[in-house]
Amino acid sequence: MPHLVILYTPQLDKETNIDVLCRSLANTMLAARDEKDEAVFPPGGTRVLAFPATHYAVADDGSAGRAAGGNGDYAFVYLQLRMANGRSSATHASVGDALLKTTRTHFADIFEKRHIGITLQIDEGAPAYDAKHSNLHPLFTKA
Amino acid sequence: MPHLVILYTPQLDKETNIDVLCRSLANTMLAARDEKDEAVFPPGGTRVLAFPATHYAVADDGSAGRAAGGNGDYAFVYLQLRMANGRSSATHASVGDALLKTTRTHFADIFEKRHIGITLQIDEGAPAYDAKHSNLHPLFTKA
Amino acid sequence: MPHLVILYTPQLDKETNIDVLCRSLANTMLAARDEKDEAVFPPGGTRVLAFPATHYAVADDGSAGRAAGGNGDYAFVYLQLRMANGRSSATHASVGDALLKTTRTHFADIFEKRHIGITLQIDEGAPAYDAKHSNLHPLFTKA
Repeated sequence: MPHLVILYTPQLDKETNIDVLCRSLANTMLAARDEKDEAVFPPGGTRVLAFPATHYAVADDGSAGRAAGGNGDYAFVYLQLRMANGRSSATHASVGDALLKTTRTHFADIFEKRHIGITLQIDEGAPAYDAKHSNLHPLFTKA
Repeated sequence: MPHLVILYTPQLDKETNIDVLCRSLANTMLAARDEKDEAVFPPGGTRVLAFPATHYAVADDGSAGRAAGGNGDYAFVYLQLRMANGRSSATHASVGDALLKTTRTHFADIFEKRHIGITLQIDEGAPAYDAKHSNLHPLFTKA
Repeated sequence: MPHLVILYTPQLDKETNIDVLCRSLANTMLAARDEKDEAVFPPGGTRVLAFPATHYAVADDGSAGRAAGGNGDYAFVYLQLRMANGRSSATHASVGDALLKTTRTHFADIFEKRHIGITLQIDEGAPAYDAKHSNLHPLFTKA
């Protein structure tokens, strides 16, 4: 942990650069500070992975969207951050708000042009087993 | 929430139309009613996303399947619905049963022809942070 | 349940065979025994599914990796096993350790050559609804 997984409808790949979104969100995570002004996430443990769905169905058959002047094709983006448990509610709120702001900014133009829903959730993990094997963390802990 | 994520073995894309499955499941969700005969899910918040695995391994190396007259290639479909917490057990059961019925109907022919496992689970979400940004909901709340 | 889902950065598909990893991990699950020397997982219910991300961002912008002599491209592998709840901590630990060992062995060469992070977690499921429809289990319960 932490990692942020993005599941989304694939038509968005033609409308925006999700690589850029991933980097923006990773940067947002790297910049997050808690109440003690300490970094919330370790750089070597910050990961954002995005997966376009191969098949999908969102809302109705498109009737409502067409009636409202759209093309009846709805987009959806689900962002789920899983982080270690034990953080404060204030940290959850500030991290969530910062990620939501980054996401809204990224999709601002698209939001004006098409029907789209975005959901962002943070889950606290409490795994029954948790192990790491990494040579990334030492990159960021050098003197 | 709610959203239904389908993870499945990719050989099924040659054997059935998962787009059709997604739409059938979305329609099942849209039709779901609770004990008060109210819609369980808001139309603008109903999403089904399906992801074929790129790599997979199911059960044994195929020996048991070949011994039983199959080709040793097993299929698997995992359907996970995440919905807001606080719903009754009766609602979980009726929604789950309805989704399972739709899924079984979709795969009925395939089930007779090949080795396949299907698992459907509903999880209640209790996220530490939950935010939405959508222009879909208003489409379904007009007078 | 059980199923093991692997989410990973896609450059790894050029560097290692993830099909082989899936089979190795499935075999590890099939070999797992609990304190009573009984199989932890049913063969027909053992599934490993791997999904390369289409877009990703890991750690920083690559600066730290390049400064350490790498190419600044970080890899990440997240393995999440979801199993039925109610198993002992000892079983979680032995299953997790065995899966981690298999994973470390698979990536041993790569770990020496590039920057990579691997995280393995086991989560206990406590779904609000759980249903199965399978013709796989009978293959493994014949007399």
